[in-house]
Amino acid sequence: MAMKAGTVAKGRSPGKPLSFMEQALEEARIAAERGEVPVGALIVHGDKVIARAHNRTIELHDPTAHAEMLVIREAGRTLASERLEACDLYVTLEPCAMCAAAISHARIRRLYFGAEDVKGGAVENGVRFFDAATCHHRPEIYGDIDGARAGDLLKAFFKARR
Amino acid sequence: MAMKAGTVAKGRSPGKPLSFMEQALEEARIAAERGEVPVGALIVHGDKVIARAHNRTIELHDPTAHAEMLVIREAGRTLASERLEACDLYVTLEPCAMCAAAISHARIRRLYFGAEDVKGGAVENGVRFFDAATCHHRPEIYGDIDGARAGDLLKAFFKARR
Repeated sequence: MAMKAGTVAKGRSPGKPLSFMEQALEEARIAAERGEVPVGALIVHGDKVIARAHNRTIELHDPTAHAEMLVIREAGRTLASERLEACDLYVTLEPCAMCAAAISHARIRRLYFGAEDVKGGAVENGVRFFDAATCHHRPEIYGDIDGARAGDLLKAFFKARR
Repeated sequence: MAMKAGTVAKGRSPGKPLSFMEQALEEARIAAERGEVPVGALIVHGDKVIARAHNRTIELHDPTAHAEMLVIREAGRTLASERLEACDLYVTLEPCAMCAAAISHARIRRLYFGAEDVKGGAVENGVRFFDAATCHHRPEIYGDIDGARAGDLLKAFFKARR
């Protein structure tokens, strides 16, 4: 499905986005249980999930250990390639600038994300990285996939910590 | 030294930037020898270099394995913290959006970079990440530190591969 530059499809996508996003939400729940910001991600290659992860910045002492970064690194190892051209990435929250640029570097084919992130997102918000002239690969992008559930998880997490 | 938001000091910095940048250039040269884009980085904590790395995206099958990312991850492990508040990062090339956002997430105190990157940079070029409202930590930034040497290394590398 061809996407016009600058557009983001809402709440729909080819394939079986909800079941994959449900698995990403499972990862987000694991993060919350461990005191990490509840975001989960996975990468699908063909019909197969080849990487799944949740945020682990505190556990790993690694500010770059967002769910998206961890699945990109795992998929690269699995496929023995730094280019993930036939891969789709599912993540429960709109990627930040770090993760958006990493998705671009990895040549991810399709990006499905859940909740919008007004404060830190870089797809529909902030620097809108994929629309920048210095972005050299733009995936097809599908936003608000099961976004309410992903957002509720984040809200509950931050409310409990206040 | 306080920096006004949106400004980047040119070719000067407190401390001993050249000697640290020379070490980063050494890392960049190692990358070139290994067929990786020649960019090197290091992180200084106090007067001590606690992490040094060069680009390893091809070797590691990891599109996120830019020099900056590798030193941030190494420094986090060394200091057992995902916050690198007392750390300065030296890199031979202007960071891309992925690395700029990672530097911000890591709370790096000062960023020193070498050559400007018109095509892929995100500090003075492209999305200018540190000036965005969705950037929640901005380091002090010093650009063009030994930039000509870093740029020459990159030009020679890409010319040889054409």
